[in-house]
Amino acid sequence: MSGALASDLRNLLGEDAVLTEPGDLVRYEEGWRYGKGKALLMVRPATATQVAATLAACLAAGVQVVPQGANTGLVGASTPDASGRMAVLSLERLNKRLEIDPVNRTARVDGGVLLSALNEALAGHGLMFPIDLGADPSIGGMIATNTGGTRLLKYGDVRHNLLGIEVALADGTVLDAMNLLRKNNTGLDVKQLFVGTSGIFGVVTGAVVQVVPVPGQRATALVGCASGEAALALLRALERDLADVFTAFEVISAAALTPVFVHHEGVRNPYGTAHPPVYTALVELASTLPVAALDLAALLEERLGTLLETDVAEAITDVFMGRPDDFWAIRHHVSESLRGEGRVLAFDISVPRSRMAAFTEAARALLAAEYPFVRCCDFGHWGDGGTHLNLVWTEADAPIPAVNLVPELQSRIYDLAVTNFEGSYSAEHGVGPHNQRFYEAYTPSLVRAVNGALKAHLDPQGILGTTRL
Amino acid sequence: MSGALASDLRNLLGEDAVLTEPGDLVRYEEGWRYGKGKALLMVRPATATQVAATLAACLAAGVQVVPQGANTGLVGASTPDASGRMAVLSLERLNKRLEIDPVNRTARVDGGVLLSALNEALAGHGLMFPIDLGADPSIGGMIATNTGGTRLLKYGDVRHNLLGIEVALADGTVLDAMNLLRKNNTGLDVKQLFVGTSGIFGVVTGAVVQVVPVPGQRATALVGCASGEAALALLRALERDLADVFTAFEVISAAALTPVFVHHEGVRNPYGTAHPPVYTALVELASTLPVAALDLAALLEERLGTLLETDVAEAITDVFMGRPDDFWAIRHHVSESLRGEGRVLAFDISVPRSRMAAFTEAARALLAAEYPFVRCCDFGHWGDGGTHLNLVWTEADAPIPAVNLVPELQSRIYDLAVTNFEGSYSAEHGVGPHNQRFYEAYTPSLVRAVNGALKAHLDPQGILGTTRL
Repeated sequence: MSGALASDLRNLLGEDAVLTEPGDLVRYEEGWRYGKGKALLMVRPATATQVAATLAACLAAGVQVVPQGANTGLVGASTPDASGRMAVLSLERLNKRLEIDPVNRTARVDGGVLLSALNEALAGHGLMFPIDLGADPSIGGMIATNTGGTRLLKYGDVRHNLLGIEVALADGTVLDAMNLLRKNNTGLDVKQLFVGTSGIFGVVTGAVVQVVPVPGQRATALVGCASGEAALALLRALERDLADVFTAFEVISAAALTPVFVHHEGVRNPYGTAHPPVYTALVELASTLPVAALDLAALLEERLGTLLETDVAEAITDVFMGRPDDFWAIRHHVSESLRGEGRVLAFDISVPRSRMAAFTEAARALLAAEYPFVRCCDFGHWGDGGTHLNLVWTEADAPIPAVNLVPELQSRIYDLAVTNFEGSYSAEHGVGPHNQRFYEAYTPSLVRAVNGALKAHLDPQGILGTTRL
Repeated sequence: MSGALASDLRNLLGEDAVLTEPGDLVRYEEGWRYGKGKALLMVRPATATQVAATLAACLAAGVQVVPQGANTGLVGASTPDASGRMAVLSLERLNKRLEIDPVNRTARVDGGVLLSALNEALAGHGLMFPIDLGADPSIGGMIATNTGGTRLLKYGDVRHNLLGIEVALADGTVLDAMNLLRKNNTGLDVKQLFVGTSGIFGVVTGAVVQVVPVPGQRATALVGCASGEAALALLRALERDLADVFTAFEVISAAALTPVFVHHEGVRNPYGTAHPPVYTALVELASTLPVAALDLAALLEERLGTLLETDVAEAITDVFMGRPDDFWAIRHHVSESLRGEGRVLAFDISVPRSRMAAFTEAARALLAAEYPFVRCCDFGHWGDGGTHLNLVWTEADAPIPAVNLVPELQSRIYDLAVTNFEGSYSAEHGVGPHNQRFYEAYTPSLVRAVNGALKAHLDPQGILGTTRL
């Protein structure tokens, strides 16, 4: 079935731009962590015009297209389904353009440029793209998922740092909105349609992003908190004065923290042999100011010391000052350590910051009452209202098989977050096939209708993407 | 003609919610600075449901609706045309809800709440909505125009600080997207459609905005620059270290500065009797940190002193440290002082920051060669890439009457900005009837087509707004 299309695409793009052999396709069929399917073929155009021509050819052939950046997404949106009838459109060759304008503080890049390549090029100018992640996605993929990361508190998400966009549309045209301006108020900001919509309206072939000076110093502390409310009081107290230099406020529950030291002996446990408190907050400050003007480590230590003399103090159990790398190592080992504890069901939830403590308590209470064999190991970006609730159990203890338990727990926890706490079932990972069911459950019908109108206009044959918005 | 609709609306909303007497209508027919027309009637619903019912009634009667906030816009988008057939829908009574969540750092407000009222309520919590303006618009109007202001460099525009929105649609339904979350990545961010689109897709009845701690200290300097390129070098040099606390970088040409001291004797001229240099930059730092931790005035003085020892120094002619209120008074008197000099044609242009000096030089050269009777008095938010090029002449000197000269100059200058310098004909004021002609000239057809599809879906009868996007 792939024969005619593959040969059309080879004529358009050259022999090695198209792969059809099953062995060659494997690495495009499986995501970094999630998502696995079977592709009809893989095609890798090298310019926006080639992407547009590829889409036109696929449209003519009636073949569904899955745009794929670096394939690091977490919701299965960049891999084909199991049918073997979808074409993977990889951006891996669309990575030539990378122009930095240090006075405008912008970079103009191809959609397939990797975050690491962009930051490497920017470093020479003392600049960076401030989305901070464990993975190394492509810029196009970051736009299609509206990536957040750990420093959203200060810098915002991809949407906040995106000035312009270039998109290949399903009909083979190219929409050029490569705006270099911070202020350009001329009607509909069309780029917004392509941010966080998983490539269903078009393929992001280029972008203009705003970039920022690299901070020269960072300071971090771990603060033990006797309760979730204490962690929120700490957040508010610190934010009042330190807002300008406050880059991260991560919170880790004892249940999520303890396994880190069990599974990673190299990671130092600041609590030693004592049991950690209910929550541990990782506070980070960063600044472009030189230490001579502002000593962040001294400032943070002094501010935390002052707090210990106020009414917030009662609920603060410990304060550890330490090196950013050491403290972030703890945070970054959480997910993996939990996988060493048993079966893990990970959530990517947000609620209003003010309701975070109440939400996690309610989730815990629900689990204790109805799923006592499940441990609630929550951690996340409390400064941004995000929490990666991780539920952990062992198959032996569970009275229900995982295949039934997983969807049941998802429904219960998402319902709690969305319906009772004005929260979201996808804080930062996006929709994708993995969250399709919840998108359908929670999206207002008026919003779905707007989506439908846009889809009918931009991709009437419905050839783009695996998500149905 | 207004009889039946007025009586329908009175039945729906109460007697005094509808005005039809010419004398009562006057203040809704004329904008704060621009825009003047004739209304069929004015209707002022007090809730989102009432706004929706009003739209349904107008739709049934086939009457065009002009949504109006505080009527402070600068592009004529909130006033009716001259036909006397449009209904003004004022948000002046839709101003009851104003709920602040200090831990979430958000405010949930009705669309008609004024910026001043919001900031007054926030002040009690040490918070503010960081859009800084001369006018006092409504929040709904700010969203519909995506207001920028003088501190965009640090805080961004309205779009950057908007979390949720509630919109009454033309068919009488209410779209509820009152999201309280910083991270909510669940497909199309529908609120973006209503930001900066002048009310043509719906009437903004409510919003959730993100708010920030009020800075406790500010420091300002005026820096004389021998050229536009020198001002850009200064911007870049300061931004590198000071980014975290850098809130404004305004630049005023000598031609725009001198009239301030001529027309306002109370405003002190730092240059005394000397002629000011080509450009004067107003640099502002602000911080939430206490002076004990970071003394901004000392820091700014020290940084500028250091710069005077580098190669940037050659082009720096003067450095004055002074009180923020005094220096901002100079900046805020520019527009008005120019009106004392003759006929003024104001522009609201942006170009990439790196091209600002070259653009203004090109504009000056064009004017000198072809319109030597016109003075180019430019000033603006160079830190954000914005410039309010103001062209000034006296009728006596002009060989062409203003009615012909104005559109000619607009076409020439906008063409230069948009076509030659990748700029915009509307940096921050929006489109509206005033910029309709330029919207049509410069908007890519693919973008217009997307607009058309959205308009056909959201307002198929075309009853909303005076702008045709």
